[in-house]
Amino acid sequence: MSMKEKRTLMLPGPTPIPERARQAGAEKIIGHRELECEELVEEVVEGLKYVFQTEEDVLILTCSGTGGLEASIANTLSAGDKVLALCTGAFGERYATIAERYGVDVERMNFTWGEAVDVDRVKKRLEEDEAGEIKAILMTHNETSTGVVNNPEPIGELAEEHDVLLLVDAVSSLGGVELKVDEWGVDVAVTSSQKALMTPPGLCLVSVSKKALEAGKEADSPKFYWSFKRAKDRYDRDTQTPSTPAISTLYVLRKVLREIKDEGLKNVFRRHEIVTKAIRKSMRALGLGLLVDDEIASTTVTAVRVPEGIEFNTLCQKLKEKYNVYITGSKGELKGKVFRIGHLGNVSRVDILSTISALEMVLKEEGFDLELGTGLRAAQQVFYEEESR
Amino acid sequence: MSMKEKRTLMLPGPTPIPERARQAGAEKIIGHRELECEELVEEVVEGLKYVFQTEEDVLILTCSGTGGLEASIANTLSAGDKVLALCTGAFGERYATIAERYGVDVERMNFTWGEAVDVDRVKKRLEEDEAGEIKAILMTHNETSTGVVNNPEPIGELAEEHDVLLLVDAVSSLGGVELKVDEWGVDVAVTSSQKALMTPPGLCLVSVSKKALEAGKEADSPKFYWSFKRAKDRYDRDTQTPSTPAISTLYVLRKVLREIKDEGLKNVFRRHEIVTKAIRKSMRALGLGLLVDDEIASTTVTAVRVPEGIEFNTLCQKLKEKYNVYITGSKGELKGKVFRIGHLGNVSRVDILSTISALEMVLKEEGFDLELGTGLRAAQQVFYEEESR
Repeated sequence: MSMKEKRTLMLPGPTPIPERARQAGAEKIIGHRELECEELVEEVVEGLKYVFQTEEDVLILTCSGTGGLEASIANTLSAGDKVLALCTGAFGERYATIAERYGVDVERMNFTWGEAVDVDRVKKRLEEDEAGEIKAILMTHNETSTGVVNNPEPIGELAEEHDVLLLVDAVSSLGGVELKVDEWGVDVAVTSSQKALMTPPGLCLVSVSKKALEAGKEADSPKFYWSFKRAKDRYDRDTQTPSTPAISTLYVLRKVLREIKDEGLKNVFRRHEIVTKAIRKSMRALGLGLLVDDEIASTTVTAVRVPEGIEFNTLCQKLKEKYNVYITGSKGELKGKVFRIGHLGNVSRVDILSTISALEMVLKEEGFDLELGTGLRAAQQVFYEEESR
Repeated sequence: MSMKEKRTLMLPGPTPIPERARQAGAEKIIGHRELECEELVEEVVEGLKYVFQTEEDVLILTCSGTGGLEASIANTLSAGDKVLALCTGAFGERYATIAERYGVDVERMNFTWGEAVDVDRVKKRLEEDEAGEIKAILMTHNETSTGVVNNPEPIGELAEEHDVLLLVDAVSSLGGVELKVDEWGVDVAVTSSQKALMTPPGLCLVSVSKKALEAGKEADSPKFYWSFKRAKDRYDRDTQTPSTPAISTLYVLRKVLREIKDEGLKNVFRRHEIVTKAIRKSMRALGLGLLVDDEIASTTVTAVRVPEGIEFNTLCQKLKEKYNVYITGSKGELKGKVFRIGHLGNVSRVDILSTISALEMVLKEEGFDLELGTGLRAAQQVFYEEESR
């Protein structure tokens, strides 16, 4: 075939942008101190509160997700403060590292990659901390490197009971996985625009509880651009951001948030669940191993074990070159051992079928024993059942 | 008239985006670890080196200009280090404040707003510093709040002589005002995408000299996202950015940089000079006062004194409502006393004429004594002479 296949972008971010929203990225620029921009910022903030399920402040920072994680540390902690970092993969590790760079006394609680946070261990550790030294818990909601969802709800309960802050990396979860920021007691949740929010990279969105703002008064880590207070004060005064925001990206985000509101959060989550089920069933039908058990499986990214005899780089490269399908690998100890399919945001059934089809063909070509169509049929069956409900 | 006038955006940033470049902001998203993105990043970096006139590293940060200024401090200084901050307006003051937030011992050298840095005072101060306590000089190339250009060249010479770092806020200058980073000995120059680079806000571009990187090895200010080392190492390894960059904004920037290369830097600067001359001559022809003397006048923004009997807010509001022309005021001690016309980047002669025309009409309506067309004619004369050269 000489015509190139349409691109199927199945990464755990950046993710494809819905067509109409994408066009908004080419709208003309407006002044960031003008009424028109204030209305844009306000609508985005209100739309985000719906997705974060919060009545508290949601702040807009122009940076990537890593910047927002850094801001969550710089705004609530000081050098020497003790935190408990729940590490279930590369991004949990990243969060801990950022805290360390700020001189925070980080105690890592490590879990096997592919497993979720064991709430009992956290409970036990907090109970042992009689002197109340632990000031905050850092946790990753959706561990992108493994495809595990950690449940913030029980950790939020523990955090409240022990008067500890709960800071959550929700970069690859928010808008794809349920996160009830207020109800579950999440003090800071950080996400970025290019994941389930289906917007180009460049914006970081952060919910901040009163407890976090209060803690911020004592946190003396140096910051200016990251300052939550600066962002909150400016927004409260005139619904502006303190520095020039990524206006074009805000245009897109506004459109996306309208679409999320129209679809309804429950439906958005349901859609992610169906897609996840289809991928998992098809992988199993093909005899491929899933890294993560069903109960803790992410609905935004799935890690699949690379089968014996197949070389990860070849698989990935052939999918790209022959079928224009983009998947990715993992990091650290999982490097080369799993491939990851991102299925968050603007992912349709067609995307899933293209991906499975291409995967079947490349695997077969590489010598993996399978009957073409086996995975496709399993996914189709899931979609069929859902339609028949 | 019921049809609204076309918008004329004459702010000192964000600035209008050239049409074809603007459309690139709606291109489809690609993976940030893919070859296609590496090529995008590399082309942008090379295009930026041309504009920065440097052979050293240019780093891409996803943030606004303020973030880049903060990064310049966090990467080269430690708490307790002494710096000399040359303050000629609100942005000089801002730079000093950011350094203070990092615990840096900031000595401000203040100049009257509307005047430029007095090189002799800087020279004298450095000579007095026999113990060599001053580690860096912070300066604003183009002081946006007043429309003054400070010349980095003699300061660069002094910095070299006294072995001091020179950190330059080039946010509203780079690409509109000549800045020879290497030749003039600028160790860090910071600009952002939404000024003379005619790109949506969201990217910060930073040149870093070897001397700055060397100083960075000892600078222990906390940082992760801001780390120059992290950005440089990643770029050197695989021409990527360490965190997901603002891909859509990079698409636009790539196109703009191609246009700048095609036009040629000399022509770009010449265009800015002509436009500035036209504005200044027309304002004088109308009997309006200019804040800044010709010799130190910015070629990207001009501050004009609000004449007696005219109220700034009314002027600004009427220009917006009746003519869709956006200008702005200033800050601090100049608030309400001057209006500022931004004329950087994608500003055409038509934009200048629309602005002057609208200004004449509103001023006349508000009771200012002028003959319509006086300012227009003066601007036209400048354009005519330039065409006839």
